[in-house]
Amino acid sequence: MRGELVIIGTELLLGEIVDTNAQFLARGLASCGINLYYKSTVGDNWVRIVETLSRALSRSDLVIISGGLGPTEDDLTRGAVAAVANRPLELDEEALEAIEAYFRRRYGEGQMPPNNRKQAYLPRGASAIPNHWGTAPGFILELPGKAIVALPGVPAELEPMFAQTVLPYCRQRFQGDVLVTKNLSFAGIGEAGLEELLKDIILSQTNPTVAPYASQGMVRIRLTARAATEEEGEALIAPVADMIAARTEPYLFSTTGQALEEVIGQQLTARGQSLALAESCTGGLVGHRITNVAGSSRYFLRGYVVYSNAAKVSDLGVQESTLAQYGAVSPQTAQEMAEGVRRAAGADFGLAITGIAGPDGGTPEKPVGLVYIALASPGDTIVEKHHFAGARGQVKERSAQAALTLLWKNLR
Amino acid sequence: MRGELVIIGTELLLGEIVDTNAQFLARGLASCGINLYYKSTVGDNWVRIVETLSRALSRSDLVIISGGLGPTEDDLTRGAVAAVANRPLELDEEALEAIEAYFRRRYGEGQMPPNNRKQAYLPRGASAIPNHWGTAPGFILELPGKAIVALPGVPAELEPMFAQTVLPYCRQRFQGDVLVTKNLSFAGIGEAGLEELLKDIILSQTNPTVAPYASQGMVRIRLTARAATEEEGEALIAPVADMIAARTEPYLFSTTGQALEEVIGQQLTARGQSLALAESCTGGLVGHRITNVAGSSRYFLRGYVVYSNAAKVSDLGVQESTLAQYGAVSPQTAQEMAEGVRRAAGADFGLAITGIAGPDGGTPEKPVGLVYIALASPGDTIVEKHHFAGARGQVKERSAQAALTLLWKNLR
Repeated sequence: MRGELVIIGTELLLGEIVDTNAQFLARGLASCGINLYYKSTVGDNWVRIVETLSRALSRSDLVIISGGLGPTEDDLTRGAVAAVANRPLELDEEALEAIEAYFRRRYGEGQMPPNNRKQAYLPRGASAIPNHWGTAPGFILELPGKAIVALPGVPAELEPMFAQTVLPYCRQRFQGDVLVTKNLSFAGIGEAGLEELLKDIILSQTNPTVAPYASQGMVRIRLTARAATEEEGEALIAPVADMIAARTEPYLFSTTGQALEEVIGQQLTARGQSLALAESCTGGLVGHRITNVAGSSRYFLRGYVVYSNAAKVSDLGVQESTLAQYGAVSPQTAQEMAEGVRRAAGADFGLAITGIAGPDGGTPEKPVGLVYIALASPGDTIVEKHHFAGARGQVKERSAQAALTLLWKNLR
Repeated sequence: MRGELVIIGTELLLGEIVDTNAQFLARGLASCGINLYYKSTVGDNWVRIVETLSRALSRSDLVIISGGLGPTEDDLTRGAVAAVANRPLELDEEALEAIEAYFRRRYGEGQMPPNNRKQAYLPRGASAIPNHWGTAPGFILELPGKAIVALPGVPAELEPMFAQTVLPYCRQRFQGDVLVTKNLSFAGIGEAGLEELLKDIILSQTNPTVAPYASQGMVRIRLTARAATEEEGEALIAPVADMIAARTEPYLFSTTGQALEEVIGQQLTARGQSLALAESCTGGLVGHRITNVAGSSRYFLRGYVVYSNAAKVSDLGVQESTLAQYGAVSPQTAQEMAEGVRRAAGADFGLAITGIAGPDGGTPEKPVGLVYIALASPGDTIVEKHHFAGARGQVKERSAQAALTLLWKNLR
């Protein structure tokens, strides 16, 4: 089974956006045992798209295309696949009805721009892939011994369409060895520290392979086993995962790929306890992460983004004398913020973050990246000091991750 | 001038990492007027690397390779370039000395593993690209009318090596036309709607080209001109940009690639006015975006994430009777939230969002995706009703974008 990705879009060749679809698709194909041999990126140019698709089709069994399904003149994928497969484009009535329904739902009757009609034309014999998240249907075109799958380039559309339609199709159509993956997720330890702890395991394992990687302030260990069935793969992974878990217990927060905020949600739900937030330098990011979890309204009561000193005093009851004596970025202020928000919201836990995100506002005593995090619990209040490197956005991300890590540890 | 990227590494085809080098290199090449026509990604496999490099060399003038320069058996780039260019690999004494010096500096005398010696072998005639950030030297190999550049795949090495050595080389070696790009950014209109407005311009323009694209809830028009100098390119773009701006004035928020929250920050700063936020379904995301802008503490006073009804009442002064009669997701509650947060914070503007992000909590009368946004200004309060499609994360993103759009429009 040879798989190949063709990513279409001039914006990618101009460097305007990072291609995250390629990684998403590569992982998905790996999960059903399809080897990816090539990935090609090509601009919105008829000749080069047709040339690239022809080559892909000549050397691979499954060609997955992302992009070029929009309603504009630049969107060439439908026509190029039709040309390469030597099939005419035909109106798919069901796909057209779905696009019309999408516009009806969002904008009312008769609001579909005429251009969008074009999106319902598919190569003859193709099956449309429903798109509940946007206008462009994808499609699967079966050819003798081969298949072409086309998906829109917008990740919010491509990802659920791939998961709901393409993945089950691939599993059924291209049966073979499966790759089974398990991710262990860690907080409060870096990639190098984790690798040091697990060096012997990483070097000695071949099936499953054991690979650490870092993404978005979080470190993961991925175990990947190749086997005839999912069950066999899981049986290969289980003892290695257990061995790693035993050694990394203080840092391991999920063995199922959950986000830290999801695990915190489960912890709070299980205890029947509630949370309130007081954010300064993170500006709402911790609240955003906490509320990304469906059902978070059951335990998250409220949050305060207290950018000004006046807000710290009036909303959270921070003492003016504390701000005057120690400053807004101090362990004393962090503690009063956490205790104040816990009291104001009537919550079991109050979590507070105050720091200097930069690029301005730093001093020799209080440099950019200095962040205090405080957690007020029923029993006591803990204050942590951090100094994060990086630009404004990274200081915000790292502060939020550290705050959630502190909460998670105390909820265990 | 045809440029092409060849990205080498099995980890990219397994989806283990996102390829950020491609974007970095694409931007760099665009800045010196080199058109990127193709980008190919291939695993650590001799046959496929040689095949891909041969094709790249046959169709492009400049081939830039990333990855495969490490010291292991998997690192095949040096040998593959030598094979494709028909040059033997030879020891580059200076490159060897640099690698030895790197290990001396980091680990002391005589600590270079024997494998790393391999990294100093380059195709005959190649010039080494110094690597002060790691062990692998890159190289430039000049061929008749063409050039191959090889860089290590680690971004922390590739990026400074490209900036210090490859970019100046490209500027000098491939003098010629430059590509000048201008992005116009729009809020409150979709990609198809914008194209409808500008169809004749998009179809009739060849230099600059005019292309709409959508990313992260925002629509952009990209103008790209080819010219002998930057000044000439800008002169070609200016009249077309003006023509588009005149037609799209109600939606155009930036002609310099700024984010919507940056433009809002400039508007508030220029007026000397301040902002406070009351977020329900966005959970802090609007505050996060507002505070991504350096210096936002000058105009952003505070935010409230009022997930519970109790918080809406106690922090914002929403009437219990309003919540009882109309519910938390209603135009009445949105209005009282906006006016309440404006009053509580003593701000010029109060912006409020209340809605149902899903997946639970919807009813036939108030379905998932129903969102009310209110803006309380010195003079009056505006309330908008929206119905957003998509999963929880998308409803949050779209609500935040709509709220910022409402604020921006009213600050113009």
